[in-house]
Amino acid sequence: MRSIRVPTPKEGFVNITRQVEEVLEGHTGLVYLFVPHTTCALTVQEGADPEVAHDLLMRLAELAPMAHPRDRHLEGNSHAHLKTLLTGVSLLLLAEGGRFRLGRWQQVFLAEFDGPRTREVWVRPL
Amino acid sequence: MRSIRVPTPKEGFVNITRQVEEVLEGHTGLVYLFVPHTTCALTVQEGADPEVAHDLLMRLAELAPMAHPRDRHLEGNSHAHLKTLLTGVSLLLLAEGGRFRLGRWQQVFLAEFDGPRTREVWVRPL
Amino acid sequence: MRSIRVPTPKEGFVNITRQVEEVLEGHTGLVYLFVPHTTCALTVQEGADPEVAHDLLMRLAELAPMAHPRDRHLEGNSHAHLKTLLTGVSLLLLAEGGRFRLGRWQQVFLAEFDGPRTREVWVRPL
Repeated sequence: MRSIRVPTPKEGFVNITRQVEEVLEGHTGLVYLFVPHTTCALTVQEGADPEVAHDLLMRLAELAPMAHPRDRHLEGNSHAHLKTLLTGVSLLLLAEGGRFRLGRWQQVFLAEFDGPRTREVWVRPL
Repeated sequence: MRSIRVPTPKEGFVNITRQVEEVLEGHTGLVYLFVPHTTCALTVQEGADPEVAHDLLMRLAELAPMAHPRDRHLEGNSHAHLKTLLTGVSLLLLAEGGRFRLGRWQQVFLAEFDGPRTREVWVRPL
Repeated sequence: MRSIRVPTPKEGFVNITRQVEEVLEGHTGLVYLFVPHTTCALTVQEGADPEVAHDLLMRLAELAPMAHPRDRHLEGNSHAHLKTLLTGVSLLLLAEGGRFRLGRWQQVFLAEFDGPRTREVWVRPL
């Protein structure tokens, strides 16, 4: 099993496309990605304009406000669990010669909802 | 095709980790899970503190309120269809020797949004 | 790599089940689907009552309103990026003899959030 370690900010979309490609070793086929965490997620999103990530985080914060008067989970990060559920913890993508095969505007992101931390991403070429 | 049957409450996250592992027969590799339903979903979430599930359901109920004045679908379960769309009906996970390879806090859940029912989960070791 | 082209409305759920099956050539096994786009998504949802799609779009529009006073992305389609993040850009499904193996009420949809356009769906039998 290959894996990468990703240092993250408090919250944000970290573009991990290149870092994952570095462990693909020229692989052609499918690539499975998984984060063994419950408050960060993986997503394929626009990588051209960083303002897209700003808008996504701002809008997600409105859907999953940090403090909720009826939250019972004492760690205070239920908002991050919800964002993770909505986004998902795995991806299945195509690669060709060690590079992801994506649409023109797409990049691969780790979405941090409860950082800063060092996150792990498991990478499995298929 | 292996499958398991899961009795569910009106709504809730049912931890199906062990029940799925029972049909993995020692498998090492990937495992594909799919629910052939449109108002329940599959997710990997925190399994340590049951209050996380409480908070997730409460917050999802606010994002997808049960009754919406402009709903047209007459069955009255559009909220459950929306929660299912947001969560997803399949998972791809890693297994080793018949046990899921997950992060420390992760467990596999069937998220019931329109029960109680007996749900089916298709399980395919790859 | 097989692919299909899907003309889409301004927004809506386009049932692509049959169109994808046409390129499966009798395949039995898993089928991977991917959209190389950042403002449309793939989902498995109820295909029997078209009012479900109405309710889903209406409710998604409330979760991700088209105009947000603090959006920074100048294209004005951050709502579509958010809906895409919530829904997901890939699917992994089962097929048998060239037909998807789905639940009784399930169909495969391309969810258009920023059309009309002609979208591409990559199809990979596994």
